[in-house]
Amino acid sequence: MPLVRISLKEGKPESYRRALGKGVHTALLEEAKIPIGDEFQLITEHDGAGLVYGADYLDIHRDDDVVFIQITLNEGRSAEVKQALYARIAELLAEDPGVRRENVLISLLEVPKENWSFGNGEAQYA
Amino acid sequence: MPLVRISLKEGKPESYRRALGKGVHTALLEEAKIPIGDEFQLITEHDGAGLVYGADYLDIHRDDDVVFIQITLNEGRSAEVKQALYARIAELLAEDPGVRRENVLISLLEVPKENWSFGNGEAQYA
Amino acid sequence: MPLVRISLKEGKPESYRRALGKGVHTALLEEAKIPIGDEFQLITEHDGAGLVYGADYLDIHRDDDVVFIQITLNEGRSAEVKQALYARIAELLAEDPGVRRENVLISLLEVPKENWSFGNGEAQYA
Repeated sequence: MPLVRISLKEGKPESYRRALGKGVHTALLEEAKIPIGDEFQLITEHDGAGLVYGADYLDIHRDDDVVFIQITLNEGRSAEVKQALYARIAELLAEDPGVRRENVLISLLEVPKENWSFGNGEAQYA
Repeated sequence: MPLVRISLKEGKPESYRRALGKGVHTALLEEAKIPIGDEFQLITEHDGAGLVYGADYLDIHRDDDVVFIQITLNEGRSAEVKQALYARIAELLAEDPGVRRENVLISLLEVPKENWSFGNGEAQYA
Repeated sequence: MPLVRISLKEGKPESYRRALGKGVHTALLEEAKIPIGDEFQLITEHDGAGLVYGADYLDIHRDDDVVFIQITLNEGRSAEVKQALYARIAELLAEDPGVRRENVLISLLEVPKENWSFGNGEAQYA
C-alpha cells in the first residue's frame, strides 16, 4: 500500500537506485508492518537544477547525494512507529548503497484505506 | 481541480500516454463529477529500475504495463464514489489504450478546497 | 519543511528553472514563514504529451508556459495565509522568470509535523 517516490541526482548506476528502493521497502516491512509483496515505487533522477536542497538546514550537512523519499501510506501509525521507520530507512540506506544519514530526507503522506485501488478497479482495503 | 500524476514504463507511443490521460479524465468527469475543462495531468515515463511493483500483491498479476495513477482532489467524496471512480478508470483504460485491469493502480490524496490556486495567485475555490 | 514539486514543459534554460524555485522559496519564506535554509525542491520537465492542462478552466487562459507547483507542508496555516502565499508566488514568478500569472497553478498537501525526517533518521519536528 505504500506508494514510494524516491528522487536523487542523476548519474548513479541502476544498482544504486535498486538498493535505495530495497532499503526503503525493507524498512517499511519491518517498522510499518506493511504486507509482504506490497512494493510500489517510483525512482526518478534529476539534474543539478532539478534537485534543490538546503545544504545545512537544521545543521545537518547535505550534499549532492541527497535522497528525497516521499511515502504515501495508510493513516494510523503512531509517532513512535514513524520515528522507527525513519531510523531504519537511514540505517539501511547507509549500509547499502551507502548513503550518508544526513542525506536521507523523508516525507509521509497519510490517507484513509478507501483511497487505494491495487488493480481490477476495486478498492481492496475498503 | 484534480491534479493527476500518471506513471508508466518508458517505450509507449505518445498516443498511448494521451489515451491514459483521457481515460482518467473521463472517469473523473463521470464519477467524481469534476467540472468540464478541469484537466491537469503530469504523465511520466520511467526506466526498468525506476518503476517497481509487487507483481502478485493481493493475488493480482501485474506486468511491465502497470500504470500508477495518483490523484490529488478535493475531500468529501464518499467511499462509494471512490469505488465507482476506480471501476470506471479501469474500464476506460482497458478499452483505450488497452491496459489490463490488473495493471491499474490508483491512489487518492484529498485536500480542502482552499488548497488550490488555478492561476492569477487566487484561491478560486476558497 | 516544505517539499516543493515544480513541473513545466521542457525547453526552458536552467536559469529559468532556478528562478521558478527561487520565487516559490521566497514566497514561502515571506508568507508561510518557513525557516531560513528550509529549501527542498524537485523541478521536472515534461514533453507535450506529459503535461496536460485545461487551457481555459475557470476562464483563466493558460498556455504551454503553465507551471504546476505542488507543495507538501505542515498543516495549520489559515486560509488567509494560503491566499497570501498564492498571490506572492504568482507575483514573484511574474517578475522572474516572467511567468504570466494565469499560468501558475498551485496545490498544497498538508501533513502533521511528525511526518518529516530531515536527515539522520530522526523526526526533527516531532
